[in-house]
Amino acid sequence: MILTVTLNAALDITYRVPRLCPHTTHRVTEVTERPGGKGLNVARVLAALGHRTIATGFAGGGTGAALRALLAQESDVTDALVPVGGATRRTVAVVDETSGDTTQLNEPGPTVSPAEWDTFLGAYRELLGDARAVALCGSLPPGVPVDVYARLTRAARTAGVPVLLDTSGEPLRRGLAARPDLAKPNADELAALTGSTEPLRAARDTRRRGAHAVAASLGADGMLAVTADGIWQAAPPRRIAGNPTGAGDSAVAGLLSGLVEGLPWPDRLTRAVALSAATVRAPAAGEFDTETYEELLPRVVVTDHPSAA
Amino acid sequence: MILTVTLNAALDITYRVPRLCPHTTHRVTEVTERPGGKGLNVARVLAALGHRTIATGFAGGGTGAALRALLAQESDVTDALVPVGGATRRTVAVVDETSGDTTQLNEPGPTVSPAEWDTFLGAYRELLGDARAVALCGSLPPGVPVDVYARLTRAARTAGVPVLLDTSGEPLRRGLAARPDLAKPNADELAALTGSTEPLRAARDTRRRGAHAVAASLGADGMLAVTADGIWQAAPPRRIAGNPTGAGDSAVAGLLSGLVEGLPWPDRLTRAVALSAATVRAPAAGEFDTETYEELLPRVVVTDHPSAA
Repeated sequence: MILTVTLNAALDITYRVPRLCPHTTHRVTEVTERPGGKGLNVARVLAALGHRTIATGFAGGGTGAALRALLAQESDVTDALVPVGGATRRTVAVVDETSGDTTQLNEPGPTVSPAEWDTFLGAYRELLGDARAVALCGSLPPGVPVDVYARLTRAARTAGVPVLLDTSGEPLRRGLAARPDLAKPNADELAALTGSTEPLRAARDTRRRGAHAVAASLGADGMLAVTADGIWQAAPPRRIAGNPTGAGDSAVAGLLSGLVEGLPWPDRLTRAVALSAATVRAPAAGEFDTETYEELLPRVVVTDHPSAA
Repeated sequence: MILTVTLNAALDITYRVPRLCPHTTHRVTEVTERPGGKGLNVARVLAALGHRTIATGFAGGGTGAALRALLAQESDVTDALVPVGGATRRTVAVVDETSGDTTQLNEPGPTVSPAEWDTFLGAYRELLGDARAVALCGSLPPGVPVDVYARLTRAARTAGVPVLLDTSGEPLRRGLAARPDLAKPNADELAALTGSTEPLRAARDTRRRGAHAVAASLGADGMLAVTADGIWQAAPPRRIAGNPTGAGDSAVAGLLSGLVEGLPWPDRLTRAVALSAATVRAPAAGEFDTETYEELLPRVVVTDHPSAA
């Protein structure tokens, strides 16, 4: 099975309003709720691709119960979330129906106690025993040590399980030093980490910081992979319009499923880019439009990067 | 005891953000949750004043469970909410810490089935048997008939229980026709109902539509009561700065406790205005600042309205 870790899972709530006007009162016309947090989005896409997938991390309170009920109801992901005393955070996305734009409000998440953190570490090590790969995803809730991804990466490497790391800021910087098999930053995260807005330079720098390979998601430009075997850029055949939320998480699912299936790099990137674009066409993160995915799969353009020569 | 009815109870969530910028992502710095909905605010203030208070209406889902837990934890209100299959709505107040302004997002609420509605009516009639007064408050969830407040008013009058009605729009219009003892519109509701922005004219018109008495809340101008015994205006001694959310609900609690205690109209208005102003100084609806309340109580200015002569 494939294991995904979501330390700061979320109940994702979407509100549609006719028009968002700050400092006034709005009647919300439509409310939708979904299991959220990067690792859970990755898990849902992996499960939809047919991979046996287990999701761990923390969940608690009424919002945690709602999240777990939705996860059970809407996916084949096995729930191995560790109970926590605090309540799982909510994220609220307010969609302005006039402009189509979204305003996002993200709660910080529950404070995790040292005892809860210990319980999680035990559960994580046990789950690694059966894992073919693990994805470490997203931001940290209060109370979790900032070098958590370094610790989780080392535990996975000790167990011989390949690690994909998808986070940002200090947790990314620290995590890279533990030498994960693959890091998947986006353009903003690359720039924040390395100070360079030139993707190839930044991805190479990221690799030097410890990741065995770096696959950077570059929005409409697709993905750039810098690996020991070469450098590739994969791009969708055309610009896909829609909601980009979760596109990066679907790319992680594409990369990880390709790794587990032993696909060569260009095929992993093709899958990641097609899934990512198909997610832009789906209503929410953790979902993808099957038709778009199948249509794009043979059409993604992969180029050997000239500077690899 | 005093009974309050909240058909569309809410879990009130407040988010503080450094600055609200539409179409961007915000980290919420502070999250607070409180039991919400006008009737529950009224009940909490009544209980804080020492009145035995029972709250009924509907509650359901994880949000309903959270609401009930908070109500039990934070007040002496007896919970007689009727379970409903759908989830209690959330309201989200986003406080911009730079400007101090609030942007409000209100969910519509759960759809109430005919069977749930019947169960509620039975519970309501039973509770009336022990009630000295009843407050019918707030908006309606989907599925509840628009003439609901007329029905609930008639049932209370049949049981000999005085009725205070605090709602707006069509439910107010229909409710007035059933002759409640007291209606408490605010200036906007009066204007929407009668087409007049002149409070005295509008309050008199509202009384002609069926209410035995009308006590209109006029924000910083206090309250205007048009009754069979006379017309009074009550005003705080000075402008009170703060958050006006829930000020009208506290006024309802003041009026209703005064009615039950047999106070004369000027004393009821004094209490309503002092409570209302003390709520402006409290962090949330359903709460009031005791010191401000006690300081204002002897200082509210009540005037016999000249046009009553």
